[in-house]
Amino acid sequence: MSTIVAPEGSLEVLSQQEVERLRDTSSRGLHDLLRRCALAVLNAGTPTDDSRQVLETYADFDIQVMQEDRGLMLKLDNAPAGAFVDGRMIRGIREHLSAVLRDIVYVANEIHTGGRFDLNSTDGISNAVFHILRNAGILHAGETPNLVVCWGGHSISREEYDYSKSVGYQLGLRHLDICTGCGPGAMKGPMKGAHVAHAKQRRRNGRYLGISEPGIIAAEAPNPIVNELVIMPDIEKRLEAFVRVAHAIIVFPGGVGTTEEILYLLGVLLHPANQHLPVPVVFTGPADSADYFHKVDQFIRYALGEQAASRYRIIIDDPEAVALAVREGVRELTQFRRENDDAFYFNWRLTVPLEFQQPFEPSHEAMAELRLSTSLPVHELAANLRRAFSGIVAGNVKEAGIRAIEERGPYELHAEAGLMTHLDTLLKAFVEQQRMKLPGSHYQPCYRLGS
Amino acid sequence: MSTIVAPEGSLEVLSQQEVERLRDTSSRGLHDLLRRCALAVLNAGTPTDDSRQVLETYADFDIQVMQEDRGLMLKLDNAPAGAFVDGRMIRGIREHLSAVLRDIVYVANEIHTGGRFDLNSTDGISNAVFHILRNAGILHAGETPNLVVCWGGHSISREEYDYSKSVGYQLGLRHLDICTGCGPGAMKGPMKGAHVAHAKQRRRNGRYLGISEPGIIAAEAPNPIVNELVIMPDIEKRLEAFVRVAHAIIVFPGGVGTTEEILYLLGVLLHPANQHLPVPVVFTGPADSADYFHKVDQFIRYALGEQAASRYRIIIDDPEAVALAVREGVRELTQFRRENDDAFYFNWRLTVPLEFQQPFEPSHEAMAELRLSTSLPVHELAANLRRAFSGIVAGNVKEAGIRAIEERGPYELHAEAGLMTHLDTLLKAFVEQQRMKLPGSHYQPCYRLGS
Amino acid sequence: MSTIVAPEGSLEVLSQQEVERLRDTSSRGLHDLLRRCALAVLNAGTPTDDSRQVLETYADFDIQVMQEDRGLMLKLDNAPAGAFVDGRMIRGIREHLSAVLRDIVYVANEIHTGGRFDLNSTDGISNAVFHILRNAGILHAGETPNLVVCWGGHSISREEYDYSKSVGYQLGLRHLDICTGCGPGAMKGPMKGAHVAHAKQRRRNGRYLGISEPGIIAAEAPNPIVNELVIMPDIEKRLEAFVRVAHAIIVFPGGVGTTEEILYLLGVLLHPANQHLPVPVVFTGPADSADYFHKVDQFIRYALGEQAASRYRIIIDDPEAVALAVREGVRELTQFRRENDDAFYFNWRLTVPLEFQQPFEPSHEAMAELRLSTSLPVHELAANLRRAFSGIVAGNVKEAGIRAIEERGPYELHAEAGLMTHLDTLLKAFVEQQRMKLPGSHYQPCYRLGS
Amino acid sequence: MSTIVAPEGSLEVLSQQEVERLRDTSSRGLHDLLRRCALAVLNAGTPTDDSRQVLETYADFDIQVMQEDRGLMLKLDNAPAGAFVDGRMIRGIREHLSAVLRDIVYVANEIHTGGRFDLNSTDGISNAVFHILRNAGILHAGETPNLVVCWGGHSISREEYDYSKSVGYQLGLRHLDICTGCGPGAMKGPMKGAHVAHAKQRRRNGRYLGISEPGIIAAEAPNPIVNELVIMPDIEKRLEAFVRVAHAIIVFPGGVGTTEEILYLLGVLLHPANQHLPVPVVFTGPADSADYFHKVDQFIRYALGEQAASRYRIIIDDPEAVALAVREGVRELTQFRRENDDAFYFNWRLTVPLEFQQPFEPSHEAMAELRLSTSLPVHELAANLRRAFSGIVAGNVKEAGIRAIEERGPYELHAEAGLMTHLDTLLKAFVEQQRMKLPGSHYQPCYRLGS
Repeated sequence: MSTIVAPEGSLEVLSQQEVERLRDTSSRGLHDLLRRCALAVLNAGTPTDDSRQVLETYADFDIQVMQEDRGLMLKLDNAPAGAFVDGRMIRGIREHLSAVLRDIVYVANEIHTGGRFDLNSTDGISNAVFHILRNAGILHAGETPNLVVCWGGHSISREEYDYSKSVGYQLGLRHLDICTGCGPGAMKGPMKGAHVAHAKQRRRNGRYLGISEPGIIAAEAPNPIVNELVIMPDIEKRLEAFVRVAHAIIVFPGGVGTTEEILYLLGVLLHPANQHLPVPVVFTGPADSADYFHKVDQFIRYALGEQAASRYRIIIDDPEAVALAVREGVRELTQFRRENDDAFYFNWRLTVPLEFQQPFEPSHEAMAELRLSTSLPVHELAANLRRAFSGIVAGNVKEAGIRAIEERGPYELHAEAGLMTHLDTLLKAFVEQQRMKLPGSHYQPCYRLGS
Repeated sequence: MSTIVAPEGSLEVLSQQEVERLRDTSSRGLHDLLRRCALAVLNAGTPTDDSRQVLETYADFDIQVMQEDRGLMLKLDNAPAGAFVDGRMIRGIREHLSAVLRDIVYVANEIHTGGRFDLNSTDGISNAVFHILRNAGILHAGETPNLVVCWGGHSISREEYDYSKSVGYQLGLRHLDICTGCGPGAMKGPMKGAHVAHAKQRRRNGRYLGISEPGIIAAEAPNPIVNELVIMPDIEKRLEAFVRVAHAIIVFPGGVGTTEEILYLLGVLLHPANQHLPVPVVFTGPADSADYFHKVDQFIRYALGEQAASRYRIIIDDPEAVALAVREGVRELTQFRRENDDAFYFNWRLTVPLEFQQPFEPSHEAMAELRLSTSLPVHELAANLRRAFSGIVAGNVKEAGIRAIEERGPYELHAEAGLMTHLDTLLKAFVEQQRMKLPGSHYQPCYRLGS
Repeated sequence: MSTIVAPEGSLEVLSQQEVERLRDTSSRGLHDLLRRCALAVLNAGTPTDDSRQVLETYADFDIQVMQEDRGLMLKLDNAPAGAFVDGRMIRGIREHLSAVLRDIVYVANEIHTGGRFDLNSTDGISNAVFHILRNAGILHAGETPNLVVCWGGHSISREEYDYSKSVGYQLGLRHLDICTGCGPGAMKGPMKGAHVAHAKQRRRNGRYLGISEPGIIAAEAPNPIVNELVIMPDIEKRLEAFVRVAHAIIVFPGGVGTTEEILYLLGVLLHPANQHLPVPVVFTGPADSADYFHKVDQFIRYALGEQAASRYRIIIDDPEAVALAVREGVRELTQFRRENDDAFYFNWRLTVPLEFQQPFEPSHEAMAELRLSTSLPVHELAANLRRAFSGIVAGNVKEAGIRAIEERGPYELHAEAGLMTHLDTLLKAFVEQQRMKLPGSHYQPCYRLGS
Repeated sequence: MSTIVAPEGSLEVLSQQEVERLRDTSSRGLHDLLRRCALAVLNAGTPTDDSRQVLETYADFDIQVMQEDRGLMLKLDNAPAGAFVDGRMIRGIREHLSAVLRDIVYVANEIHTGGRFDLNSTDGISNAVFHILRNAGILHAGETPNLVVCWGGHSISREEYDYSKSVGYQLGLRHLDICTGCGPGAMKGPMKGAHVAHAKQRRRNGRYLGISEPGIIAAEAPNPIVNELVIMPDIEKRLEAFVRVAHAIIVFPGGVGTTEEILYLLGVLLHPANQHLPVPVVFTGPADSADYFHKVDQFIRYALGEQAASRYRIIIDDPEAVALAVREGVRELTQFRRENDDAFYFNWRLTVPLEFQQPFEPSHEAMAELRLSTSLPVHELAANLRRAFSGIVAGNVKEAGIRAIEERGPYELHAEAGLMTHLDTLLKAFVEQQRMKLPGSHYQPCYRLGS
């Protein structure tokens, strides 16, 4: 089964050199990366969070870039059927393919080549994040702040999902837009809710922004409702992109990925330079999730202290209150940016320390070496905890991680005794509540805690 | 509580005379009609199907039309809170208000005044229907046929509702638009489904057309997703509007209103002049509704004969098959219209006999006098059965009907014995399946069958 | 030569009855009117002001309305070649054809039929004017006042034409839109100038509104730049449309038609009820035209008095000053309308006395009977002078007028001695300055002055 | 006089680093370049072709880039008054400012920094041209070829100017778009003509593309009608941009700049690799310019041979024939590109030899060393002649050139005797016909011919 489609919407014009590189199947070429990301996008309709399985199921899938008179064309072989209706590709998916192409080309040619960006320095990394987002057309000058980043688990209960929809609906009624990491669960619900509310408010240009990265996109494929998609080069730049474009952040119940995000956010906000920066943060869920947030809150207070806890607000079972709190927080942030002549579309003023920016490769060795102790400075502990959770995410759902676990057994994590107890409690709760993997599969932990 | 809003989208410019007439609270003025329809639209968020109760709950609601420098403004007193978010009216509702205004003004000034339309003749009535739709901007020249009219109950099971959403989703993926009678249940589901599919297909101009009339609008208020709304003067013109703009018709499970629609449709299609006109009709529902359609089918075959049954197709539990059947039917209809140079946007060629056009006022006397016998010519029987069901709808949910039943007890209907048995079976099934009224209320029949 | 074109932009949906009437070639049908107006629009490229000659040149031209699957189509036989480029009709002209169709259908069916409008009463006539404009989509609610009506001759010098362009340019730079009577000369120049300025200001929705009527359209065909066109039923309704939609009025040098417009405007403004209504009026031309305005000014002061002269301002040879004066005048008018909650898009408050509204048929008898004496009340004299000039326009360029003059010789006009002298001076100046007809032709006066 | 304006339309989002560099007034910063280009754009209304004089007149002009909450702002001191209307900058000029900013930032940061582009190789240079154009949004995939590049003098007669307008009008009626080098004369006429025709055809997205470079922009400022503007880094990349985006090329009468363009074009087309590439080229002018083209034709035939002459067609005094020839040529080119799967928006297949790509710095030495002899291979002679004319353009109107001539006297050019005679004839004709500088100034030749 071979199909030819035209990419839509963002990048239809490539140079001959760029096309060559996309075709290059050697290790320095981009063909393999393109193939993996394209497959993830095309497979969006299938509920799965197992990146490796996706690749195996569609082992004979291929994609070729062709230059034609009216621009670029993509030739697809053996693509997932769910991307098509009566033989024609769903247009939202065609746009996502185009976004994938655009970001792969840009990152490879402009960020990683030519040495313009010093990717070992804080400024260089932030600058790279800025350029990728600008090239993707994500940074809209002239728009008043209204972008709400929603985090939360991909594997949540029906009740939690419906709740996240209700929150999205209340946000949408107030003309707020949604940004998530793509994928199912708490990353889809708010978009669906906002989408209905935007229709009622006739908000035709509502934004449903997805920020992904090549390692996670197969497990958290963008729903076709996502109408702006950007593929950051790695998880750390994805996290930085979230916090720099966010005008408010809502955290729904989730598992290790969500905890990674919380630790990243609080770690960054705890940096002294960020002390007075307004960033509205709300943790919220339905009544039944109250206990969940209680546990997360306890863990944060223990590990990062009361100051960390002062940066968020917990609201249980009240979507409208969440929307009003966000609306109010955004108003204050807008006021602050105005007073400081800060850009609305990119939070330049936020300091993101280098330890939160440098890519963390969760090998067994790196995981084992992570220092997890409350004797560390708080932002350092936050950084290491973030890395630990990042590794567990990889072991759960990312292709390379799953493979490593299969070969070498679970990661070993060493922590100070008190911290270990709290960590253990939290992780066990995630397992029990089926937040580690999509329900249906038996969860085999990819980590082992020791002291 | 008083609010001032600007109507949006269709009619912002009225003459002084038109404004005067809208303000006129005397019996020849339009203020009362405007007030009732506006209230229905504003109350869209509240699940109810009791028109009278709506009016009583908001007895102190009022609406005034004001001329201002930038056009018309509406002053609302004591409007339902659900129409507002943080004190500002939802824009979709503002557009519906504007549509109400537009149609009330047009019908009163252009259709009912001046004698341009002979409302006692077939041609005059069809012409009036055409003009109201054209004035509402419903007739889009140049567009290829794709409008699917969906009928079905306002009070259906969760399963049936989800099924109607799935069908709408499959239609939307195929770029088909939806037209319903507004209200909840089977009239909302297909729109919701199509709305999500249109977003995935980036169909920005998807149409969600609602056709209502003053008597039913309070019980079947338009969901704010409806982005084209027209208020026909009465139920007969509403039915004619449906069949003249439809490029295909889907019937979901429903109660007496749906049966009225089916009888109208088949009665019209049975007219010899319409014999060769292609109009795709599909009856569909989830697996559990198979028996429902079996009963309806049996009733039709008994009452109207096998020929009537040949005009529809029953598809159970297969949304994609429904969408493909509709797509194919629309293709044939398009071909037919092309060959005959028929307009795409209005089915002029369809003959609607006068007995289906003349307004039927369901008084106790009129109901009692209806001749219901298989000895009648089939289209005459269809017309009378349609009237009988129309009366039951009025007794169930319309203000005037509810009042009449309270005062004088249930309508008496007289039918030939065999027909009576079938009728009784059908109506009892509706009561049992809670299709008469929204669940929660005990249903007290508004009719009595006798021979 | 036969072509089929689709009308564009406004009226593509007609009822079968409406189509029938357009096809009806009997005297009660609309075919002849449609044919004449369509021909005028199609002939826009050819510089002529002789309506009769146009009709004779294209005696074999015909137009037929056809109903097709995608809407209405027009079949044209022997249409002027200038309307086409390489065999395809210029799109602006296609839109004008559509406007012609729309207005002919509307006026015949809604204004002249059914008795909704009492065309013998002031209110009825104004209401009709309002409805025709609304139906044509001319009345834009929500827009801040910015429509400048420009009057002036169709036969003016190159210098005057360039000056009118400069004024239009200065208006356009200030985001003002232009309305004229269509045709060449002072009615085209301001639009051309504004069009360039709007492009520089990226004003994509600049309005170039033409208001015509069936009798004059052949002599003053709309330039295809006109992007809103409305055909009023007669000259009096056309004049009322001008003054009701204008937010400012500029008068360039012109001949008898322009004088008719000036007399209409001042006659209306002199009505006591209009005394405090702000309507900015500027007379302007290049340096060489100073004498022209001196003569017009003298005539007005003599005939209508100093009060009349206080309603306009004369600015010579300074386009920017004109634009600033208009801008300022519009600002005051906006303020006034705001304070009084008057609509921006239609000057309801303006009183137009019946004698300025009733159609004047310039037969030889009617012309001879006009009372032209300063002993009359000033607005009555203004009304009669307006009629006299209207008759001369007809005798110069309208088909029926030219024919009547050929058959019965020039019109006789009787005036009081002093007035006659002034009138004679003015008319002689028009003849000398070649303002009566397009240059090239020898002008044979169609009137004779006597006492 | 200090004003703050928001740039419009293309680049409103800059990184902090980019803003820093724009502010940097040191020699490695971009402030001076920005200041000079911005001034040129702001001075568009003033008819001048003397770059140095512009800079001197506005010696106290300054521009500063500021970061604000809603994006970038520009602070202007002592800007030319012609860029403003009533204190607000004309929007077209605001867009041009934005384009200037965009291209300066892009060229400095992406082309000249980082070593991604090998600017000493043919491929590297062409790739750079492609990237600059793509970044400027000039390359529209999916559009059928219709871009006509118009070349010709900035100092031409009124008659020639009107003729160029007529040609533009005929092109515009046929939905063709215009690209020129900006500035007055033959570079403005076709745009003005096409602009009117596009309005008549309701072509709302008509393109008026200007391609300039920092050295010439002050002498050939973009008319605000230009709605796409790109500033290439130097004259050679500007010329390459022209020939790579052109779907047809029209040459109007002109002087040395136009001859430079002709020599560039023919030199490139004479390359064997380009032999079968379709590129429609028409030389055209009014009847009085027939002799001019005769002279140019003779010079080409003498210097470059008959083969060169076979690449263009001369059409005198017939705008419609020009448009039809272009339309036909574009049709063939489209067919060719389709058959070869060549992109429509960029002529990758065209070979531009390195000698036409490498920047030529017209110092007195470089000019004196140019080998101008028919014994050279024809494309080498074409390249050198192109350089010679380029030098004369610089000496006439560019700031650096004017200064060098003032300091060191005219350039010396050495040519073989026969060529010298022809060259002398051509240049003398340019001087006589006032094609060297805008009329009014006495032309002092900046060159001396010797053998």
